[in-house]
Formats: sequence, structure tokens, C-alpha cells
Amino acid sequence: MELWFTEKQTPAFGITAKIKQTYVNEKTDFQDLAMVETEEFGNMLLLDGMVMTTEKDEFVYHEMVAHPVLNTHPSPKHVLVVGGGDGGVIREIIKHPEVEKAVLVDIDGKVIEYSKKYLPSIAGKLEDPRVEVHVNDGFMHIHEHKNEYDVIMVDSTEPVGPAAPLFERGFYQGIYEALKDDGLFVAQTDNPWFKADLIQKVNRDVKEIFPIVRVYGANIPTYPSGLWTFTIGSKKHDPLEVNEADIPEMDTKYYTPRLHKAAFVLPKFVEDLTK
Amino acid sequence: MELWFTEKQTPAFGITAKIKQTYVNEKTDFQDLAMVETEEFGNMLLLDGMVMTTEKDEFVYHEMVAHPVLNTHPSPKHVLVVGGGDGGVIREIIKHPEVEKAVLVDIDGKVIEYSKKYLPSIAGKLEDPRVEVHVNDGFMHIHEHKNEYDVIMVDSTEPVGPAAPLFERGFYQGIYEALKDDGLFVAQTDNPWFKADLIQKVNRDVKEIFPIVRVYGANIPTYPSGLWTFTIGSKKHDPLEVNEADIPEMDTKYYTPRLHKAAFVLPKFVEDLTK
Repeated sequence: MELWFTEKQTPAFGITAKIKQTYVNEKTDFQDLAMVETEEFGNMLLLDGMVMTTEKDEFVYHEMVAHPVLNTHPSPKHVLVVGGGDGGVIREIIKHPEVEKAVLVDIDGKVIEYSKKYLPSIAGKLEDPRVEVHVNDGFMHIHEHKNEYDVIMVDSTEPVGPAAPLFERGFYQGIYEALKDDGLFVAQTDNPWFKADLIQKVNRDVKEIFPIVRVYGANIPTYPSGLWTFTIGSKKHDPLEVNEADIPEMDTKYYTPRLHKAAFVLPKFVEDLTK
Repeated sequence: MELWFTEKQTPAFGITAKIKQTYVNEKTDFQDLAMVETEEFGNMLLLDGMVMTTEKDEFVYHEMVAHPVLNTHPSPKHVLVVGGGDGGVIREIIKHPEVEKAVLVDIDGKVIEYSKKYLPSIAGKLEDPRVEVHVNDGFMHIHEHKNEYDVIMVDSTEPVGPAAPLFERGFYQGIYEALKDDGLFVAQTDNPWFKADLIQKVNRDVKEIFPIVRVYGANIPTYPSGLWTFTIGSKKHDPLEVNEADIPEMDTKYYTPRLHKAAFVLPKFVEDLTK
């Protein structure tokens, strides 16, 4: 018998992957969590039936959340990750020697627990001495930590279930207040083919709060449409003003100093969503 | 009853789309041809079970085949399309007023016939007075037309079935000879996630023949991995030497003058395939 998992990315379109085994399939306090072994993409974490990360393509998302903002801030010492319990963004953050403390706040401890067990190449750096892990509500955390972070990264699920408040205007206001005077943040903002309205809404909301707003993209095969967007809100530093020559070559598989600015050059129909 | 079409893009991974109706499902002299109406992507052309084009996302592929090379050549008068019977690349070519003649050579007349009937927004410009359509073998055509074209575009299916010879070194040699002294060509070269070896092979082959070889990418949701690559071989003009300010704003949905160079900035793991 062949087992195939299918994610309906829209009501009429999806991806399907052959499953070798299912490690976990349970309801946590916050969401449905599954961990499976796929033939094509290695181990795969699913939340509420949606692919969160896979061993084969995880590097794109994690590198592209972490490096553009960290290479924009001149001295990112204190960094917060909201969500991201799989640890992939943390792994990329601690590649930056100037980061003194990286705090991870995920609401669902089960994501952290199972990622450590089944995705060790992604979650391994959660044990790093520079990393602090809190199982907590990210919304609460930012409201309790004003003027504290240089960089905040929002590595959330889709705006359904526990992540819904992370796409509200009030959350971006809280982020603004949790950032220091020259801080910036980045959030994953879904794809422009099926969720154009979300990108537009976030863009409008963040522009009301932050003086500099930029959107960039990256190719992630297991995410809807294969084109994922990220939105940056910044108080002072502009990712497009970074000098490419000042960006160090890093141990990456997707991000490069050359790609730092090119990723912000969007297809016309996506560019139009940010105007 | 719900009908879903599934394309296995690899033996263990695929996409699946809800089908509203099937217009055509037949064996032509060269390949299996299907034309269906999908709920998410509109009408869709399939050859040998692989998605060739859909009404919703076709603009990416067709714009990104045509405009980078046409905006690199200073005066592209005579243009050849090998394959591309759906007419989408032709539609983009004739947006360039300097093109005097665009020749389409597709081996399978049925692709042209059914595209005109079921994909009129794509195929409509095949009737343009500047366009010549030949139902013929592209390999033969280039060998019979030496030193004739300014630009050649290879809009083929995958390297199985009738398109297999279009990925051979001898074909690129033929293209070289069919091009004028300052001509250039572009070919679709599949995706870097599942077909890395193909990109590498084409890159090596084309480098043996053309002094300038460049690879660029574009996001196409219905193609494997969502990231498609294109390889340019050029005798004289370098797409990276084009002055962005000299590129006209065109009636496009994906390509822009800003994207002209950014599309050539590849993720590191793809960049590495071209070294």
C-alpha cells in the first residue's frame, strides 16, 4: 500500500507527497501536529494539515527570514523569534557572531519537543548557550518587553488558529514598541498567488507604523505557489541601503550577499500589491 | 463526484488540481495531449501528463522566455520559436515593435489547433501578420536556416518524448549556426530542485559553444518546485550589460526593467550549478 499525504493549498489545488512513515499525529493544546517521513523531502512537520518545514527545503525559509534583517542592522545584539519552534531560524541567527542573545517564544511546546526529536538538523541549535527558549504567547511577550530588541522575526503559521493575532495591526504596534530606536522586524507574509489580499493588508498596516517597509520573496517548493513573501518594517535601517560589499559570505545554501538586494525586486503583479 | 488531476513531478511528489471538465484527451502523432478546465488555474494544457501552461500563471513563463533576450539584443528583427505551439511566447514577442518576423516551428500541429480553440488569450496572436507558423521538426528547421535569426527561443517540453533531441549538444551547435553573428538564444532548462543535473549539463554544453552563458529564474506555481530556470547562450550581447534605463516599460504582469537583472541573481545552490 502506498500512502500519500495531500495538502489542499486552496480549495481546488494542492501538493501531494509519498509518506514512508508517520512519527506523530496528534492534537496539541493549540493545533494539530504531524511529523512524517516523506520520500522526496525527508522528515516533514505539519501544523493544522499545512507543511511547516521539511528537511530538504527548510534552508530557504530559515535563511531568508534571518539573514536579510540581520545584515541590515549594523549591530544586532538582541534578537527575538516569535513562533519558529522548529529552531531553524535560531540556527541561522547564531551564525551571526554579533548576536549576544536570541530569544525564541513559541506558544506550543510540542513543536519544540518533536522538532528536537525528528528534525535535529534544524532544531539542534536550540541548545546553544546564546539561545533562550520560552514556551509562551508571543503577543504577551512583546507587550512585556518594551524597547528591548534590535531585531524581531515573526515565524508564524498561517493566519488561522493560534497565529491569527500575529497578523493584526495591534501586533505590529506591539513589535514597534518592543524594538529599540533603530530596530527592525520581519514577518512571513504568505504567497502572492493565493493570498494577495493578505500581503496588501499587512503592507498597509505596517506602513501606518514603520517609516520603512520592504517586501521580498524566496522560492520554497513545499509552500503554496512556490513563491513566499516576507515583509520588513524598520525604524531606521533600510535593507536596500546596505552595501553588498559589507555583507559577509556566510555558510548558506540560498542567501548570498548578491541576493540580498535582488530578493526585493519583485514580479510586477507582486510589486503592485505593495503600492 | 469530484475529479482531481495529479501530476507526479517526481516519483514521490506532485501537484493536484480540481478539474471542472475535460475538453480533449488524446494521443497525437507525437505525445499525449489533454486540455482541461481547472477550478484554480483556468484552462490547462497537458502534454504527456505534464502541465505545459494554464490561463492563470502562463504569463510568467511566456514573458520570461521572450523579454530578457529581446531586451538584450539591440535590434531583434528575425526571431524563431522552437516548440511553443500554444502561442504564448509569440504573443510576448510581438509586443516588441522592432521584430519584423517571428517564426514558430512546432512539431505537433494538434498543440496549435487546440490552443487556438481552448486557450485563445494565449494563442490569439498566432494570426498576427508578422508571425509565420510551421508544423515541422525544430531540429530540421535550424539546420536549414543558417545565419538567419537574431534571437532563437526554445520553448520545449521536458527532455523526454519529442523534445529529447532539443537538449542535446548538437542542437545547441545548430542554434549557434542558425543565429547571426550577434545572435543569442534562450532555452527553458527545468528546475534546480529535482533536475539539477540537467541544468548543469546544459550549462556545460552551451559554454562549449557560446562565449556568454547566463542562467536566470522565475516563479511558476504549476511547474515542479515553483522555480523555473532559463539558460541563455549569446555570441556577443550580455544580458547583464543591458542598461536598465534603456529597457522600455512594457505591458507585462511579471517582467519589469528592474527584474531584468535581478532574475539572474540565483540562490546559492542554483548559482553553484552554473559554475
